[in-house]
Amino acid sequence: MMTEKNLLKNGERIDDLERNGLSIIQDPSSFCFGMDAVLLTGFATVPDQSLVLDLGTGTGIIPILLSAKTKAGHLTGLEIQEKFADMASRSVDLNCLGSRIDIIKGDIKEADRLFPSASFDVVTSNPPYMVKGSGLRNPDESIAIAKHELLCSLSDVVKAASHALKDGGIFCMVHRPSRLVDAVETMRHHRIEPKRMKLVYPSVEKEPVMVLLEGRKNGGANLTVEKPLIIYGPDGKYTEEITGIYGY
Amino acid sequence: MMTEKNLLKNGERIDDLERNGLSIIQDPSSFCFGMDAVLLTGFATVPDQSLVLDLGTGTGIIPILLSAKTKAGHLTGLEIQEKFADMASRSVDLNCLGSRIDIIKGDIKEADRLFPSASFDVVTSNPPYMVKGSGLRNPDESIAIAKHELLCSLSDVVKAASHALKDGGIFCMVHRPSRLVDAVETMRHHRIEPKRMKLVYPSVEKEPVMVLLEGRKNGGANLTVEKPLIIYGPDGKYTEEITGIYGY
Repeated sequence: MMTEKNLLKNGERIDDLERNGLSIIQDPSSFCFGMDAVLLTGFATVPDQSLVLDLGTGTGIIPILLSAKTKAGHLTGLEIQEKFADMASRSVDLNCLGSRIDIIKGDIKEADRLFPSASFDVVTSNPPYMVKGSGLRNPDESIAIAKHELLCSLSDVVKAASHALKDGGIFCMVHRPSRLVDAVETMRHHRIEPKRMKLVYPSVEKEPVMVLLEGRKNGGANLTVEKPLIIYGPDGKYTEEITGIYGY
Repeated sequence: MMTEKNLLKNGERIDDLERNGLSIIQDPSSFCFGMDAVLLTGFATVPDQSLVLDLGTGTGIIPILLSAKTKAGHLTGLEIQEKFADMASRSVDLNCLGSRIDIIKGDIKEADRLFPSASFDVVTSNPPYMVKGSGLRNPDESIAIAKHELLCSLSDVVKAASHALKDGGIFCMVHRPSRLVDAVETMRHHRIEPKRMKLVYPSVEKEPVMVLLEGRKNGGANLTVEKPLIIYGPDGKYTEEITGIYGY
């Protein structure tokens, strides 16, 4: 059995996920998971025994949290960056989740070669939000790749999801509200019909900062927009819904 | 000058709009305007001196309210149903707005023959929400036409708007959240890029009941989702934002 010491590389630390005793390896000087990933795991519909694929899994936060929050049968995380795929694999080992989670180092654009078509019940993704060339680019290339569409576009992610999903399968994604039109248009284009949407507002007085979207492969048109998810209450503290999702 | 008496037909009444002394002729046994139209007039961007076209104007509520709320140069309401177009024309006369508002009886699907292309700065619409054949159909044909896509589809409305709008012109629409994907996809298809969106929630704990959308003819991609519009506060009364839009 590995000790914590030989699980960690230079600059890394182990963060407690405060959920079922789970931990995750992160490098605080590099990309760390955000509220986006956590809220996606609270929003996603994951049927019992389902096979789940997370596209662009980074440090593996989504499959690790979903392993605790759901009764998914098996979870696969696909990550193109060697550094993050390696951290995710070690986090899987650290949590003794090797029998439920596989981390694969590979390219979303090659999903059709990596996975048989129609082989997953659920696909999740917290993709890069920013169009290539937009906004300030982080000088750290690995962070820039996680935040900007440098190695894959929104269309690449949705196309891969559509390939991997069974008929009627579920796609869940978190994105920026500014990209909402791109997201739903791209989903429909790839035969994943948007069926549920939830906007995440910092407070009732603020513009939303995230949109949570769920689609069904080959589903019929009709969107349910859910009640707003408000992050902070009038007292400036996390609302009960947020603390419930975090599991505090 | 007409008196109120000879302005009204059987079953009709005059309703006070509680805004600048304006009134509207409605038949309470038929289709009466709803909060949707009022919220659209609060949401729409209408530059000073702009030429405004309202597609499917019904009893003329949108141009009549916009004449008071904005400095629009001239407003045109297009309505296919003779009964409503006639009521709208008489409401324009009742409010002495004949110099600022024209009501035209005609078909949205013939907008390319009715109006020169690129002749309006702003197009508004509170179209029928329900797909033909969906939901319960009102036995009153005139109400059914106002609520279901019997005489025009969402695509017909957006296509007409795109024809009528100048380059960079503004399209504002209210619709059901369930049709949001259809709405933004159709807008983009007809080169009206969705730029602003606002969801209308009955309360913070409820699913939204309306979506307000604004697009720009030939605009670039980037949606701003605004803070939620909440109808009822925790005290069960209209929020200040709602009473502000109604102008109470």
